Amino acid sequence: MKMAGVSNDRLCGRPVEQVLEDITAFHGFPAPGVVIGAVMVDWARERIGTGIEADAIVETLRCLPDAVQLFTPCTLGNGWMRVLDWDRFALTLYDRATRRGYRVRLDAGKTAAHPAIHDWFLKRVPKDALPLETLLGCILEARRAVLSCRSVIVTDFFRRPKKESVVICPGCGEAFDPRAGDCCRGCLRGGYFKLDGA
Amino acid sequence: MKMAGVSNDRLCGRPVEQVLEDITAFHGFPAPGVVIGAVMVDWARERIGTGIEADAIVETLRCLPDAVQLFTPCTLGNGWMRVLDWDRFALTLYDRATRRGYRVRLDAGKTAAHPAIHDWFLKRVPKDALPLETLLGCILEARRAVLSCRSVIVTDFFRRPKKESVVICPGCGEAFDPRAGDCCRGCLRGGYFKLDGA
Repeated sequence: MKMAGVSNDRLCGRPVEQVLEDITAFHGFPAPGVVIGAVMVDWARERIGTGIEADAIVETLRCLPDAVQLFTPCTLGNGWMRVLDWDRFALTLYDRATRRGYRVRLDAGKTAAHPAIHDWFLKRVPKDALPLETLLGCILEARRAVLSCRSVIVTDFFRRPKKESVVICPGCGEAFDPRAGDCCRGCLRGGYFKLDGA
Repeated sequence: MKMAGVSNDRLCGRPVEQVLEDITAFHGFPAPGVVIGAVMVDWARERIGTGIEADAIVETLRCLPDAVQLFTPCTLGNGWMRVLDWDRFALTLYDRATRRGYRVRLDAGKTAAHPAIHDWFLKRVPKDALPLETLLGCILEARRAVLSCRSVIVTDFFRRPKKESVVICPGCGEAFDPRAGDCCRGCLRGGYFKLDGA
């Protein structure tokens, strides 16, 4: 997508045009939530400073995990990003040695001064009443003006522990981490599929 | 990483060298779990056939989510990939219209014939006793021989519902989806950080 007036501009160490292209390639389209997520990552990363290895905690499943995975070394699969299904549009990057870091959130008190962003964030207008390009233009103009950033000390949800042993589940016959219990969580909870005889 | 004998070979529609580079760029290094994950995605994707839009369910937080995010259009943030913390090394790709798909798992009954993969999968040897390049070579030689693939009908964990409304949490003052309850899950559960006065 070509956006007017962003071509000389950088975000997360990349030209903004590149940021939009990278988001499109990974996420499927330049979703507003991932674009503002890039601004959030950029701010937290700047506050932490260079040379610090940071882990990430994301407080929603929507959009933000992709911003973290694209613009930091943290991914879900490498364990450096933890994702909480709390539906709060916030993320924390923190120094894994000191547990000090920065929590950045999209702030409804601040979006109030930016009607397009406010309406999108609080779902006050139907999606097709707000053209994507207009909304992205507003986000890339407002940037940190719609965010709040606080210095925090992380007290929970550190990087997950390494797996130490593996056993075979007596229920399904598949390998799992015995810390889950006598059988795997899939068997404890009940599956999500049936075999297709067709 | 240069691997002998893989240069003319393809996986997930890319040369294997490219697969290893893409994994390294995203995940940090060519983790064995992501590499076998690419083989798993490749198989499920081939069974589903071209032209079918597939959603993904992954049964572990470890490594596999990154294979899905790299080699399918499904990501955590776009909602096309659901991730279950069940610690089973398995994934399902399924047609979101018919809910029919394929579950592929790393099968300990089959890895038994491939000692390096077996020892790694079941954590039978310390990490430094098994050089990464040896293990990757074994994985890229064995490929589907260590996997099992079943045709399934998905019955749960479909794509998450779209958010319909947003309210402000009386606890923290932040925006959330009121389907969570009277206040947001962060307030219900208790936070993971304290403000840093330093």
